[in-house]
Amino acid sequence: VTGIDIHAHVVPATFPASVRADVTGWPSMEAHDSCHRNIIIDGKVYRTLSDKCWTISKRLEDMDRMGIALQVISPMPELFAYWMDHASARDLLRYVNDQILAFVAESNGKMLGLGAVPLQDLDLTLEELHRLKELGFAGVEIGSNINGEPLGSARFKAFFKAANELGLAIFVHAVRPAMERILGHKPLQQVLGYPTDVGLAAAALVSSNLMVQFPGLRIAFSHGGGTFASLLPRYAEGYRVFPAVSEALATSPEIQVRRFFYDTLVFDSLHYLAQLFGESQLIIGTDYLFAFHEKDPINRLRETFADERLRERLTCDNARRFLKISEANA
Amino acid sequence: VTGIDIHAHVVPATFPASVRADVTGWPSMEAHDSCHRNIIIDGKVYRTLSDKCWTISKRLEDMDRMGIALQVISPMPELFAYWMDHASARDLLRYVNDQILAFVAESNGKMLGLGAVPLQDLDLTLEELHRLKELGFAGVEIGSNINGEPLGSARFKAFFKAANELGLAIFVHAVRPAMERILGHKPLQQVLGYPTDVGLAAAALVSSNLMVQFPGLRIAFSHGGGTFASLLPRYAEGYRVFPAVSEALATSPEIQVRRFFYDTLVFDSLHYLAQLFGESQLIIGTDYLFAFHEKDPINRLRETFADERLRERLTCDNARRFLKISEANA
Repeated sequence: VTGIDIHAHVVPATFPASVRADVTGWPSMEAHDSCHRNIIIDGKVYRTLSDKCWTISKRLEDMDRMGIALQVISPMPELFAYWMDHASARDLLRYVNDQILAFVAESNGKMLGLGAVPLQDLDLTLEELHRLKELGFAGVEIGSNINGEPLGSARFKAFFKAANELGLAIFVHAVRPAMERILGHKPLQQVLGYPTDVGLAAAALVSSNLMVQFPGLRIAFSHGGGTFASLLPRYAEGYRVFPAVSEALATSPEIQVRRFFYDTLVFDSLHYLAQLFGESQLIIGTDYLFAFHEKDPINRLRETFADERLRERLTCDNARRFLKISEANA
Repeated sequence: VTGIDIHAHVVPATFPASVRADVTGWPSMEAHDSCHRNIIIDGKVYRTLSDKCWTISKRLEDMDRMGIALQVISPMPELFAYWMDHASARDLLRYVNDQILAFVAESNGKMLGLGAVPLQDLDLTLEELHRLKELGFAGVEIGSNINGEPLGSARFKAFFKAANELGLAIFVHAVRPAMERILGHKPLQQVLGYPTDVGLAAAALVSSNLMVQFPGLRIAFSHGGGTFASLLPRYAEGYRVFPAVSEALATSPEIQVRRFFYDTLVFDSLHYLAQLFGESQLIIGTDYLFAFHEKDPINRLRETFADERLRERLTCDNARRFLKISEANA
């Protein structure tokens, strides 16, 4: 059991009532059955959740089964609260982060935490970032867009600068993708919208030269970077062809993308990703434990890659570099 | 010289004045230099165009150099006119289609035509489709969205039904992608927006079960299907996991996608595409002759695929199946 999983979500078992009246998006829990609860957002059941979302002993059993030695836990993205009034978002995320801290403490060294920050308010974000650092969080999970605004926008530079100075890892997770051009049922938000939004987020961070400005940043993308694998070759060619593109970039897209990390949650095409982004940049991510998660990540790697040393890099070495932890930690 | 290129654009050398006053989007030409003209749309230079856009003799020389025996020509997508009042769009597209017919006649059997139809008006579309069929067009080029509406929408079924009955090939080309989540300079519309929009279009046609309803349809996507290569493995897994997804699809995404064709305009990752979509479904597409086009398509195939028989399929056999033409035609 040696795997490190950087993409695994938790939800608190309960939520306090909001101190303000009628806060849009403030969550609450209701009973469902003996091992599930419904999370209610804006009067509707957003999702029926297994109690494994908050029961650490059950998670540890699953981790053993999956071959995961260290689970890096982060909030379910609908809890990001970017769309909430600033003070309520701060209150909710402090509560969620404190819950994550308690889960990590309960895990006996088998979990690390990624907190969330209210990115609609940069002052509150910096405040919470410093608090997370003091509390021993490994980093933060952020959305692939902030209320529709691309991550590379100048507005968010203060966040990346602070995360860089504090040495916090950043996990970019898909959230609330554009759905106008996606036809069909609700799950397609996760199936098609998520990878599209993560792909555009990675492209936007390349366009903003973030990794050139802050080479020390450690950033990983959910869902293997989503559609970015398809966008990159064209972005690289655009860099060679369009002066407006090459003048705007400090280095070629190909160089920038090999500084990012990507989780392995692509179900297929891992070979292609390893070649495109580099074998040193892929890290296990399972999306545990939502419906759509990777149930057997270690076997998937074993079936995909014959080289044992390479598998070891993807199983734990790369994750240690992303999290800046030593072998002693996991 | 045996290659068939299904992705090559033309623009008429001149445009008539609109018979209506102040038609939004109606194009006109102005002189630029001895071998370029500016196409003016809504009072602005939309693009400076080489006279190769309308000078067939020059195109034939380039085709020789590129190893292309048959060029399938289609309008520059900004001419689709989906955003124009219906009668003006009909007038403009008839004019453009007639110009394409003249180019094809001038090419001495070295070109085939794909026309355009005003998809914002299904009656006018069916009228023009029948006219295109009578005039001997190989098929139609359509946008990856119609004024932001996904191609799989029920509204467009009459179009696909008619194209199927008339035996017209359909080339889906990126047009006016969503740009809200793309950060940066204008060329990124083509670099990042285009593949994103084509990818979502392919997904929407899978979601609408189009190829199950009309198995005889021949549909090809520009830019190698764009981000669809990244979306497909996740769509296939979503089909296995979410009942709402599998119930909505008549067959798995993996089966449906192998009925589509994809051009080779990906600059890289052709191996991966051949494996994902099938070696029988890739066709040369160069985007001749815009800034971003593939200049040496035959060599690209030679460098990518060692197997001569496979290269032959990608160079011409697959295109013949898409266009339903025999070896005698090209």
